[in-house]
Amino acid sequence: MNEECGVFGIWGNASAAELTHLGLHTLQHRGQEGAGIVGLTEHGLVRHHGLGLLSEVFTKPVQLAALHGDAALGHVRYSTAGGRVLENIQPLLFRFSDEAIALAHNGNLTNAISLRRQLEDDGAIFQSTSDTEVLMHLIRRSKQPTFTLQLRAALNMVHGGFAFMLLTEHALYAATDPHGFRPLVIGTLPDGGTVICSETAALTAVGATFVRDVQPGEMLTVDATGLHTEQYTTQTQLAVCSMEFIYFARPDSNIFGVNVHQARVRLGEQLAREQPVAADIVCGVPNSSLSAAIGYARESGIPYEMGLVKSQYVARTFIQPTQELRERSVRMKLSAISDVVAGKRVVLVDDSIVRGTTSLQIVKLLRNAGAKEVHLRISSPPLRFPCFYGIDIQSMNELMAANHTVAEMRRLLDVDSLAFLSTQGLEDSVGLATDAPHGGLCTAYFTGDYPTDLDDYAAGFASELAQRQIDINEVSAP
Amino acid sequence: MNEECGVFGIWGNASAAELTHLGLHTLQHRGQEGAGIVGLTEHGLVRHHGLGLLSEVFTKPVQLAALHGDAALGHVRYSTAGGRVLENIQPLLFRFSDEAIALAHNGNLTNAISLRRQLEDDGAIFQSTSDTEVLMHLIRRSKQPTFTLQLRAALNMVHGGFAFMLLTEHALYAATDPHGFRPLVIGTLPDGGTVICSETAALTAVGATFVRDVQPGEMLTVDATGLHTEQYTTQTQLAVCSMEFIYFARPDSNIFGVNVHQARVRLGEQLAREQPVAADIVCGVPNSSLSAAIGYARESGIPYEMGLVKSQYVARTFIQPTQELRERSVRMKLSAISDVVAGKRVVLVDDSIVRGTTSLQIVKLLRNAGAKEVHLRISSPPLRFPCFYGIDIQSMNELMAANHTVAEMRRLLDVDSLAFLSTQGLEDSVGLATDAPHGGLCTAYFTGDYPTDLDDYAAGFASELAQRQIDINEVSAP
Amino acid sequence: MNEECGVFGIWGNASAAELTHLGLHTLQHRGQEGAGIVGLTEHGLVRHHGLGLLSEVFTKPVQLAALHGDAALGHVRYSTAGGRVLENIQPLLFRFSDEAIALAHNGNLTNAISLRRQLEDDGAIFQSTSDTEVLMHLIRRSKQPTFTLQLRAALNMVHGGFAFMLLTEHALYAATDPHGFRPLVIGTLPDGGTVICSETAALTAVGATFVRDVQPGEMLTVDATGLHTEQYTTQTQLAVCSMEFIYFARPDSNIFGVNVHQARVRLGEQLAREQPVAADIVCGVPNSSLSAAIGYARESGIPYEMGLVKSQYVARTFIQPTQELRERSVRMKLSAISDVVAGKRVVLVDDSIVRGTTSLQIVKLLRNAGAKEVHLRISSPPLRFPCFYGIDIQSMNELMAANHTVAEMRRLLDVDSLAFLSTQGLEDSVGLATDAPHGGLCTAYFTGDYPTDLDDYAAGFASELAQRQIDINEVSAP
Amino acid sequence: MNEECGVFGIWGNASAAELTHLGLHTLQHRGQEGAGIVGLTEHGLVRHHGLGLLSEVFTKPVQLAALHGDAALGHVRYSTAGGRVLENIQPLLFRFSDEAIALAHNGNLTNAISLRRQLEDDGAIFQSTSDTEVLMHLIRRSKQPTFTLQLRAALNMVHGGFAFMLLTEHALYAATDPHGFRPLVIGTLPDGGTVICSETAALTAVGATFVRDVQPGEMLTVDATGLHTEQYTTQTQLAVCSMEFIYFARPDSNIFGVNVHQARVRLGEQLAREQPVAADIVCGVPNSSLSAAIGYARESGIPYEMGLVKSQYVARTFIQPTQELRERSVRMKLSAISDVVAGKRVVLVDDSIVRGTTSLQIVKLLRNAGAKEVHLRISSPPLRFPCFYGIDIQSMNELMAANHTVAEMRRLLDVDSLAFLSTQGLEDSVGLATDAPHGGLCTAYFTGDYPTDLDDYAAGFASELAQRQIDINEVSAP
Repeated sequence: MNEECGVFGIWGNASAAELTHLGLHTLQHRGQEGAGIVGLTEHGLVRHHGLGLLSEVFTKPVQLAALHGDAALGHVRYSTAGGRVLENIQPLLFRFSDEAIALAHNGNLTNAISLRRQLEDDGAIFQSTSDTEVLMHLIRRSKQPTFTLQLRAALNMVHGGFAFMLLTEHALYAATDPHGFRPLVIGTLPDGGTVICSETAALTAVGATFVRDVQPGEMLTVDATGLHTEQYTTQTQLAVCSMEFIYFARPDSNIFGVNVHQARVRLGEQLAREQPVAADIVCGVPNSSLSAAIGYARESGIPYEMGLVKSQYVARTFIQPTQELRERSVRMKLSAISDVVAGKRVVLVDDSIVRGTTSLQIVKLLRNAGAKEVHLRISSPPLRFPCFYGIDIQSMNELMAANHTVAEMRRLLDVDSLAFLSTQGLEDSVGLATDAPHGGLCTAYFTGDYPTDLDDYAAGFASELAQRQIDINEVSAP
Repeated sequence: MNEECGVFGIWGNASAAELTHLGLHTLQHRGQEGAGIVGLTEHGLVRHHGLGLLSEVFTKPVQLAALHGDAALGHVRYSTAGGRVLENIQPLLFRFSDEAIALAHNGNLTNAISLRRQLEDDGAIFQSTSDTEVLMHLIRRSKQPTFTLQLRAALNMVHGGFAFMLLTEHALYAATDPHGFRPLVIGTLPDGGTVICSETAALTAVGATFVRDVQPGEMLTVDATGLHTEQYTTQTQLAVCSMEFIYFARPDSNIFGVNVHQARVRLGEQLAREQPVAADIVCGVPNSSLSAAIGYARESGIPYEMGLVKSQYVARTFIQPTQELRERSVRMKLSAISDVVAGKRVVLVDDSIVRGTTSLQIVKLLRNAGAKEVHLRISSPPLRFPCFYGIDIQSMNELMAANHTVAEMRRLLDVDSLAFLSTQGLEDSVGLATDAPHGGLCTAYFTGDYPTDLDDYAAGFASELAQRQIDINEVSAP
Repeated sequence: MNEECGVFGIWGNASAAELTHLGLHTLQHRGQEGAGIVGLTEHGLVRHHGLGLLSEVFTKPVQLAALHGDAALGHVRYSTAGGRVLENIQPLLFRFSDEAIALAHNGNLTNAISLRRQLEDDGAIFQSTSDTEVLMHLIRRSKQPTFTLQLRAALNMVHGGFAFMLLTEHALYAATDPHGFRPLVIGTLPDGGTVICSETAALTAVGATFVRDVQPGEMLTVDATGLHTEQYTTQTQLAVCSMEFIYFARPDSNIFGVNVHQARVRLGEQLAREQPVAADIVCGVPNSSLSAAIGYARESGIPYEMGLVKSQYVARTFIQPTQELRERSVRMKLSAISDVVAGKRVVLVDDSIVRGTTSLQIVKLLRNAGAKEVHLRISSPPLRFPCFYGIDIQSMNELMAANHTVAEMRRLLDVDSLAFLSTQGLEDSVGLATDAPHGGLCTAYFTGDYPTDLDDYAAGFASELAQRQIDINEVSAP
Repeated sequence: MNEECGVFGIWGNASAAELTHLGLHTLQHRGQEGAGIVGLTEHGLVRHHGLGLLSEVFTKPVQLAALHGDAALGHVRYSTAGGRVLENIQPLLFRFSDEAIALAHNGNLTNAISLRRQLEDDGAIFQSTSDTEVLMHLIRRSKQPTFTLQLRAALNMVHGGFAFMLLTEHALYAATDPHGFRPLVIGTLPDGGTVICSETAALTAVGATFVRDVQPGEMLTVDATGLHTEQYTTQTQLAVCSMEFIYFARPDSNIFGVNVHQARVRLGEQLAREQPVAADIVCGVPNSSLSAAIGYARESGIPYEMGLVKSQYVARTFIQPTQELRERSVRMKLSAISDVVAGKRVVLVDDSIVRGTTSLQIVKLLRNAGAKEVHLRISSPPLRFPCFYGIDIQSMNELMAANHTVAEMRRLLDVDSLAFLSTQGLEDSVGLATDAPHGGLCTAYFTGDYPTDLDDYAAGFASELAQRQIDINEVSAP
């Protein structure tokens, strides 16, 4: 399960490119397939980008030095296999006779395919296969008199989940969709300048002070005269991607006032209340589920233990020629401490089950290490529906919970018991200060209740539901 | 503080090279400056090696495929700046008219410099600047009739801390020094073959069953006729590097029957008993100190919390041009969760203090995040003396505790209190089943009580002591 | 002085990509800054391209194998410093929702800048800074019902010198400008398939049989039904770039029925008749002037000798830190044989003088090697005006002959005598079978007589003439 | 057919490394498989080396800048497939406790195998598989009191053809074998410093003035006190490799006072006298045979023409998957000008026939281009015997003339006539000023008359002769 991206932009600091580089490192968990930075230098906008981790893209000081200047825009990207080409790595950089514009995006547009077809019919030529580029064509084709008005017009034409950032020689722009699916936050630097980026942890990393979250439907301009804001639309309603709290975001980030680690501890506490079990130790799957495990242990009174160890080295492993070697290569990334779990009844806390393959392997690790019982507790509801706003789950075929009952899943995963957090428990535990539906969260993957029209995806999704004889109106999440 | 190396060898399994690759990933924490594997292929011994992480050295499947065969020997290396050249990356591979020999080493020889000078005076030409190569020259110059006897003779000529492994077309050899400073363990694979490597975690990673630890002064031969053992010397006495337990080894490894994670939990528990403090939360410095923090929390009853977050992406960061950017780049690797520590009295558990610079930065992170009090608790005694057996501390100048009292350190590190574990507490908590001095541990960096002669290092060390007017015989560890 | 490019396309041969790779090697002299091939594979159009020589771009067999299929289009490119970025390396590849189109170009469009501005004003987004991309936008914006009609419409909108080739999944297209400035030839392969490329030498290299030259204003389509031709315009008049004969094209190529080597021999013979001199030996500047030197020697009866040797290794040399090292680095590429020239009166035959710097260095080499006299004979008229059709001379400031008399040039180049071929001699010696002006050649750089309007360049050129107080109507070439 | 190497050393010039880089470019024709330079810098001896052409090994200015200092030693290497590993790329660099020594070598030692075995039996460890390293072991094991005496002793122990150069922090050393098989020349730089290298063309390239050739059996030392010479042996007799004149050396080099180009012209003239033929044009195989072709044309009165064109781009071509593509890939490197050769009787002058495969392809090119008759004239005698002194012909199986009569060769090569130069003609045309046998040339590959014992190769060679029932004493060259 992968987030689409992380974005980081700065205006008005002499170390803009260097700080963007630091900031992107902090957002590396949001995308590992590609990275890029555009710097506003004395030679105008200059870009360095490439495939792979930030440390694989920026290998020489000169690559960063070439971007030195007072403003910068950076991006880390997750992409599906087909799109893993340099053309799709962001920020996209467009050069016109009179100006240059850099564009970075986190999210997914639900009407990108139909917009692209219309634009192509009208003569447009696309550089990339990503949906991001659509925005630039809409901007350039707008007949509005100023760039800001053109951008505003374009933002009103795209649907779905998005956090856009643009950099020109004159200003830095940022905008989020009307539901705030994808987070953006604003900070200020002690030595001057404004930062806008995906997570508060990146603000902290560069020494910036958090100012506030970007609001749904808001469009920001930062230029020599300061920070300007306007609502490009007022038809907004908060629906933050709940996966940001459950899985994606860093524990040291805050989203709309809620600390992610503490939200996860509360998810674990609530899970312990909803789904208690008699056991000897509580273990979390490192690293994303450790917070929820601490919560479960704290609420249940069962000792928190380190039953699983994750290698701190991100290993790009080769495709192994045999099934046996493939299984062994899992153990390279994660292993169980036999002396801790042997003979014990283990509560294993994980944040979610997507395909179920990883869960199965972890359970095997614990059983091989001698665990007497394994009770799997998931700190979110069952993932049953696709996401069309930027998370890489686009078909129900991939989702274990979309194709099996909890009882079947328990058997398939070979655990002694399996239980999920309730949707209500999720909403209450996160506890956003809002009266929006679902506590201000998007819970569509659990409930099928999508906050927007599905546009280009509607027909395909309806067909998937029909195949499974599901009437979406009758679905109710546990 | 860096360990010298990790080694991993296999004899008698058709996936020898692939398993060695997996095994080395599990040992990556023991050395990140270089890696190499020699495979016994149908074309004889073939090597692939390079500078950097294993994932930087093995970038294409063909590099590993070229090593395919029934036996392999791998190595990950830490090296000092001066020696960071390809020639020093191990396994070293020596080609003779009649045979080829691969050699890998973890440790440090105390008489390597004088042996090398003697050998050069006698016409020897060295390929590398590492001390490892000395062994090969001693073997080749031995007048003994068989390779095993030559190796035995050579092992009796080198002093210090070492775990050697050699691979020829006929056998895999392993040997540890007479004190067992550097660990080696033996395992067997379910589909055939014997593994010898630095840590049990690597056995687990490749699906091998642990057989036993290699004993001090033991020399092993694995060939077509099975595993053979002999003592190349009987003048042995166990003195395992205590830093393996405190800091280096993986928590999921066992050394001489003791699980490392559990030993660290006991260190934390003992520390809580020896050095209690009134506080609101206990936090460990991720990742190596989390086990001790769990122990401290468990024994003290103060809640365990996640106050610090470590980035899971190993960032090779550029040298930053300004002091401010340098400070910011620390936050990229480690950050404090403000919502967790703000207004709290924090017990910060760390495993050791070397130079003190990292500790100072972490304390700053906590203070900036709003911690009301910071009580630093170290789960080992003060590091006051150099190590000559393979850890990269060769001068007392680098050691904060060698140059300051605990009170001075508390002030310099800007903490509300500072306390260390006692040497007795360390020895008892690890709890090796032995009646050797210091509980079977080498504690020389704490006590100055070196288990061997210092040979080539003796004069330099005496001079350092003299400078500080220390009489080593009067030193007593806390 | 640099040609813009070489192109090579194949339709209907199972080794299309491999043959294109061979063919481009033969055209490497036409562009060394970048290379690319698009293959029509079972996965549609696939591209591999990069900066540098073909051998630097295609470094692994897999890169070529990925392009395997029945059709391919390749390109080698020269580019000015500013444009040396991957985005500009051709063939450009455009992906649309319904199809993909590859585009390659040799030449220069005189109205590209104004067309681009119009297109951008109408919302177009350009990927590259090259003029080539304009054609694709014109095609896509045409309202004509078929691709062929769209292409025809676009070709009628671009001015200047061009040889375009396009590849889709359905056909290969080729077209030259109405004056045939840039050559294209057609060939057929013995094992099936049609080749269209820049020079006949590339036909020979892939074993193709020459069919005919592409005619000015002609547009060709090669598809499953065969080769189809039409004139997209009938307002044509032959004006082949005379520099193709003098300098650019390979000696083993034929252009409009004339062999390039033999044309150069005739240039040398005519030069000997027009500008005789008493001397001991005739030497050519390797490699492009050797043919003319053979002609001069043959006509004059003075022995042909190898006075200069060119290194066969194309050295990309570093920028040297000192003037002295820079001068020495010239000798690395070209050197004089002292035993041949010492004490001799040397006729040095060169094909042209651009800036004069190279000529000066060569004369120095001969003088240092002991030549008694150096008589420089140039097998073309003085280069006095820019080229706007694809040769990289865009300002008169760069041209020695635009700023100095022949007498001044003789003195500056330190030669005993200096003489050029006449324009009439050039036209007669090439001897194209046509009654077009200037014998079917473009001689604008010698005479200022441009066959077309200069469009976007007209104002700048007029200003250069005005600076020099030249009335272009009164210019007459020698 | 490949030469083993080129060497270039400088002592006493502030641009030593930069000049060595320039000089090696000029020697690139002597070896293309690897290159390296050792510079004497303020940090002692520093090396940069790698596989491939010099331009592939030195890709960044910093690589050369790191070698900056007052002395340098460089090497370009040809190696057989098996030895194409970094370990064998020279200069070899040996680091000892007290000093460092760089070693470069051109040639082949006939007793290297037996010396290596003896040294290994005595405990020596070799880094490379090349014969060069033997010298260093002999030096280090010598019991002589000074380095110069040790080197002298070592030089007297190695046999065969060699030009050694060594660089220490104290001096540059050079020595050639007692027959002067491999050339070395001395030059001085105008801004100070002494150069010793393989060819005078490299002296010219760096602006050095030629002083003299290094004499057979001579050993040179260049240090702060100047250039010192001694004969390490007086049992010498000149036998320069005749292939240096025929094929290897650059035309702008002089060897023992004879210019290579002019020697080749004389070989061509003598060939025309010995082997005249009625024909219309004379063509040489570019580039090495052009000088001889000029000579043949001049003496015979038949016009010299450019019938064959060689691509100036060194193409590293992929192994082609089909025979047809393989044949086509030859045309990429060499092509015939049809308009020149069609209908003509062509005298094709080549310098030698090794396997005959290249000759056959060239003849095919001419026939396909329409040549009426092809008369092949070789400007050297038939190659019938191996070379043991540094040219890569070690078995008679590879040599066409060792296995076929001239009449058979004519038929196999499909030429109208075939003739070779006589050995006497060769010796006379080169015309070295010496009364040594064979005019001071080694002609062993033509005559079987080897100037030295064959040592390790004697038995193998005898067996090859026996297979062919050749009595070497009865062989007489044509």
